[in-house]
Amino acid sequence: MTPQVRELAALVAFPSVSSAPSPALRACARWLVDKLRRLGARDARLVETGGPPVVMGSVGQGRSVLIYGHYDVQPAGPASAWRSPPFAPVVRDGYLYGRGASDAKGQLYAHLAAVERLGARLPCRVVFVIEGEEEIGSPHLPAVLAAHAPYLASEVAVVSDNAVLGPDRPSLTYALRGDLYLDVEIAGAHPELHSGNFGGAVANALRVLVRALASLHDAGGAATVPGLADDVVVPPPAERRYMRTTGPSDRELRAEAGGAPLAGAAAYERATIRPSIELAGLTGGYTGAGIRGVIPARARAKLDVRLVPRQDPERVHRQIFARLAAAVPRGLTLTTRERMRAQPVLLPRDHPAARAAVRAYRRGFGVAPVFVRAGGSIPVVSALAERTTPVLMGFALPDDRAHGADERFSLAMLAKATATSAAFLEEIAR
Amino acid sequence: MTPQVRELAALVAFPSVSSAPSPALRACARWLVDKLRRLGARDARLVETGGPPVVMGSVGQGRSVLIYGHYDVQPAGPASAWRSPPFAPVVRDGYLYGRGASDAKGQLYAHLAAVERLGARLPCRVVFVIEGEEEIGSPHLPAVLAAHAPYLASEVAVVSDNAVLGPDRPSLTYALRGDLYLDVEIAGAHPELHSGNFGGAVANALRVLVRALASLHDAGGAATVPGLADDVVVPPPAERRYMRTTGPSDRELRAEAGGAPLAGAAAYERATIRPSIELAGLTGGYTGAGIRGVIPARARAKLDVRLVPRQDPERVHRQIFARLAAAVPRGLTLTTRERMRAQPVLLPRDHPAARAAVRAYRRGFGVAPVFVRAGGSIPVVSALAERTTPVLMGFALPDDRAHGADERFSLAMLAKATATSAAFLEEIAR
Repeated sequence: MTPQVRELAALVAFPSVSSAPSPALRACARWLVDKLRRLGARDARLVETGGPPVVMGSVGQGRSVLIYGHYDVQPAGPASAWRSPPFAPVVRDGYLYGRGASDAKGQLYAHLAAVERLGARLPCRVVFVIEGEEEIGSPHLPAVLAAHAPYLASEVAVVSDNAVLGPDRPSLTYALRGDLYLDVEIAGAHPELHSGNFGGAVANALRVLVRALASLHDAGGAATVPGLADDVVVPPPAERRYMRTTGPSDRELRAEAGGAPLAGAAAYERATIRPSIELAGLTGGYTGAGIRGVIPARARAKLDVRLVPRQDPERVHRQIFARLAAAVPRGLTLTTRERMRAQPVLLPRDHPAARAAVRAYRRGFGVAPVFVRAGGSIPVVSALAERTTPVLMGFALPDDRAHGADERFSLAMLAKATATSAAFLEEIAR
Repeated sequence: MTPQVRELAALVAFPSVSSAPSPALRACARWLVDKLRRLGARDARLVETGGPPVVMGSVGQGRSVLIYGHYDVQPAGPASAWRSPPFAPVVRDGYLYGRGASDAKGQLYAHLAAVERLGARLPCRVVFVIEGEEEIGSPHLPAVLAAHAPYLASEVAVVSDNAVLGPDRPSLTYALRGDLYLDVEIAGAHPELHSGNFGGAVANALRVLVRALASLHDAGGAATVPGLADDVVVPPPAERRYMRTTGPSDRELRAEAGGAPLAGAAAYERATIRPSIELAGLTGGYTGAGIRGVIPARARAKLDVRLVPRQDPERVHRQIFARLAAAVPRGLTLTTRERMRAQPVLLPRDHPAARAAVRAYRRGFGVAPVFVRAGGSIPVVSALAERTTPVLMGFALPDDRAHGADERFSLAMLAKATATSAAFLEEIAR
């Protein structure tokens, strides 16, 4: 490992899972403060939020460029699914493996490395804002941005938390889907009952939940919630043609998804300009080994709903609740609880900051980037858009397995990302 | 506690869960061998099966009466649902609380106490067969019955593993539903994927499982599997009238189920002469705290199917598989695995053994019993029926919460059951 890869591995080694808080979050934040101080950010510090702290610090002088990052990561999921432990990063075949390597510690680290490389030649003031709650919807960040508005004031905010199309196909993301994450619960009217004595005679809370969830989609998997499509704005034909020409093909997305058939053609459109309702988890009744003859008294599910521009999370929540409730008979109780909300985002492609980013990618990758839409959500982007112009400069690869087992970050991409970040700081300062 | 209650509590204290094997099973079996020896069964011993051992032993001389019991119990389920720990039996308000107190250690213990009470006056040879795998479908018992056929030969086999209608309403069970317990799994074509990047573009294994399971019932909760009703024999009108007159009313079943509304009228019929498909458990995707944005790669469910006379478990399994498979798109894999099978049972009500049982209940309870159908299943009964005449003499109460939290056995019923068992041994020997 080079010294830089070793340093990135140290950052990835923190099990900074925000949905299951542990001291690792604060330890990771302290590590970043130390790193910023070594880069010359004498004002680097932790800002308390009530949750994991936000790391802030600034380097250099001149026009301000805000660089946003997050040090928290998704849960690792089942350890058995990983080839090497998720928080013991190792390099194999040119990739650093570990939870958060790609999403987004590797991408954040490229900016730190760029500032280090520029050193005294840094032509602007770079102010870092690195939070620890991105993966749970950034509940505290908007207030922190407001409280520190003068310190953070900038014309542009760089966010690197998404993917390019390939190692030689840089791309600049101009649209994100929004996110609405719901916990759904059906509580039965009965305690848990013997499935022999009562099978067929009482309402089964788990069966009712299954029936309610099944009503959200048609046989082909398309969402069928009444009203859901009302606020969906389909992009104009010219933009859809551009998407078809420049975006990932079905074949590429199929490879990225593990090689199996997709749910239909035009997967890039399905995953970006259309809303989706995914069932992310479900549990109810007896799930242990062997058999237990019971009629469950309650059951829970997690719905991950992705929204496109103009859709309002609150309205969509009401529509989904109504659809689920229609399948719940009297005597059983349906509860939904919003666990995360992110607004959909559509950014201008002709802003000077976007043009500077295009030039920076050309310098860093040797080829001009295309503009792409992303299916994922970055909750903070809509908060940033209220104060400055976000620029979404992703450095992940489509097969990095963000959120999955064996997540990784390409070391070749680390080099290109560092060069692109340094180039952007030079371009924006011109 | 009386010495007998203390002894029953010691029996209930063994966490002899057959679906999660532990040394407690063998320890419980040894305890029973010791007890049988103290009753005079010098031949009491463990019979090895490959699973938990079967306890055998005989007391007395003359006509043989086989008494079947089981010392294994259901899993306790979540500890938090119990008012006192499931395997630390305590007496409260005239009930002994603990997993297995009612199903069926308390009922077995009544027979042991009856033999003890009769002592030298025991008018027949009682041979005990007590297995440790009833709750997982008695996989080894049929072979044990065959291997020890001469030793076990008897005209009648008493099985006490079900409920009477109430403390003053004794009943004799003449029909049991069969059971088919299936593990169902959908394996997706993809690894676990990011629900932002791929939401709407790939088939979600959990969503497909939910859709497949929802196709098993109509909106009212009635099973809608094609062919399922073909082999269902509805009892003649006279028998249904008898059931309405003597069986539990909707009001009683409602109280027994915790007081909430039932799924419809005629619950006693729904739970006995009609088949049912209950979803006993389901798990898939992320089920931990907080949020994780994933499209699950696989999902699993447990189906508990209750069958009525003439239905064949194997045929029903094929019908359910076909129904589920119709909802599974190409590229995903449906697997079902039979975990338990019990044939439905219909016993003659005019057999001399049944008549002896009627007289015994009258002596033990002071009131004549009625004949009832049970919704539950006792896998061993069809195996016993091939060799002898089973008599189902239950001593549980409907609100004993068998299989649920806070399972209990009434001490008043223990006294009546002991008297009834002793009376039966006298009546059958006449």
